[in-house]
Amino acid sequence: MLSKAKIKLIKSLAQKKYREQNGLFVVEGVKGIEEFLNSDIELYYLYTTEDIFKVSTAHYSLISEAQLKQVSQLKSPNKAVGVFKMPKPKTIVDSQLIVALDAVRDPGNLGTIIRLCDWFGVNDLVCSKTTVDCFNPKVVQSSMGSLTRVNICYLDLEHFLETTESITYGTFMKGESIYKTSLPDKGILVMGNEANGISEAIERLINKKLSIPRFGNLKITESLNVATATSICLSEFKRSTT
Amino acid sequence: MLSKAKIKLIKSLAQKKYREQNGLFVVEGVKGIEEFLNSDIELYYLYTTEDIFKVSTAHYSLISEAQLKQVSQLKSPNKAVGVFKMPKPKTIVDSQLIVALDAVRDPGNLGTIIRLCDWFGVNDLVCSKTTVDCFNPKVVQSSMGSLTRVNICYLDLEHFLETTESITYGTFMKGESIYKTSLPDKGILVMGNEANGISEAIERLINKKLSIPRFGNLKITESLNVATATSICLSEFKRSTT
Repeated sequence: MLSKAKIKLIKSLAQKKYREQNGLFVVEGVKGIEEFLNSDIELYYLYTTEDIFKVSTAHYSLISEAQLKQVSQLKSPNKAVGVFKMPKPKTIVDSQLIVALDAVRDPGNLGTIIRLCDWFGVNDLVCSKTTVDCFNPKVVQSSMGSLTRVNICYLDLEHFLETTESITYGTFMKGESIYKTSLPDKGILVMGNEANGISEAIERLINKKLSIPRFGNLKITESLNVATATSICLSEFKRSTT
Repeated sequence: MLSKAKIKLIKSLAQKKYREQNGLFVVEGVKGIEEFLNSDIELYYLYTTEDIFKVSTAHYSLISEAQLKQVSQLKSPNKAVGVFKMPKPKTIVDSQLIVALDAVRDPGNLGTIIRLCDWFGVNDLVCSKTTVDCFNPKVVQSSMGSLTRVNICYLDLEHFLETTESITYGTFMKGESIYKTSLPDKGILVMGNEANGISEAIERLINKKLSIPRFGNLKITESLNVATATSICLSEFKRSTT
């Protein structure tokens, strides 16, 4: 059954305010939903046009294509919309490499960074409260199953960095070449906002300033995209462990 | 003057067919247009709501906000729409590192890869004819000024790789770890399609198969995004030259 009240609820979950009020978020598409069903994230309810998921009958309904269109946020909905319970963040393990984000705003960038953490075995991703919500539908879509494997915590980043005993790293236009720096297998790698980089309040809490050297025309001041810069930094932190 | 015929022409340039017929493409926004005006790419005509560009009066018109909305492809047009002449590709210099793309389809990925070539000093980007057009408005928007600095050639990639004397590299799920491979400062780095990777026809022309090791859960078969993988590969090719 897909009542009017349920339709209203699912559509409201496009907004952070209602996701937080209800403790729920939406995953769309067969592949994505299967990854969440196979994780320890709890299913709230599933709506599907085909009986293809291994889910107890108490937790799903078959719906029509027309109904799917009503609740989907995609232009071309893909067979199912799953509503999941937001997981509680786990304890951060600071004996490993952690990535911290200072006001990353673009959902596609956050999605890519979550996939990168998953790829490079970074279990904990710490986000300032000004960073885009990881349960934003575009982040869920672009991070794919990686969202089920990376522990994401939103917190007061300044306080977190002030009280940590780990060494903090950040990328800046002027810093020591990341290729020449000896990088350990633990620490906190801070990446900054798309337009402004790392904020002043956070910069003063960075122990080691790194930079990714530019090889093209050095007069150009354009910086690398934050997701691209994160991929290069994580590759540098991890390559020495192989 | 912005005649009906001109409006029709500018709007038609959203499609590859009309860009090729007219040899023209569109750049939007003040910053982007300024980068193209400062390059050797030739201006065809500029429409702007503010008299802020250093352009001969024969080559621009002041238009109203309403007119700008008529010709812009953006939701929030930014003061100006510039129509530029497509540059002729320059000769490829195979004594340097070249990037080659085998059917990269997503405009955002191509834009990011163009920015990466610019950052890492790769002058020549070779694209299969199945790769998204670099003058696609979304590619122009996401590659920003880098499009003026990287030489992009569309060609028969199979023929190009068959006849080159350079060593060809490509990334695969199974290949030698890129961290353990000695990489030279010249050669051709081939990157594949978003869903299928490098095609079979191209794979047989690759001399050295590389892979980017996964550090997270090794059971996951999800691959890295092509733009992210390109950033890590270019960083590896260039780091040894510093």
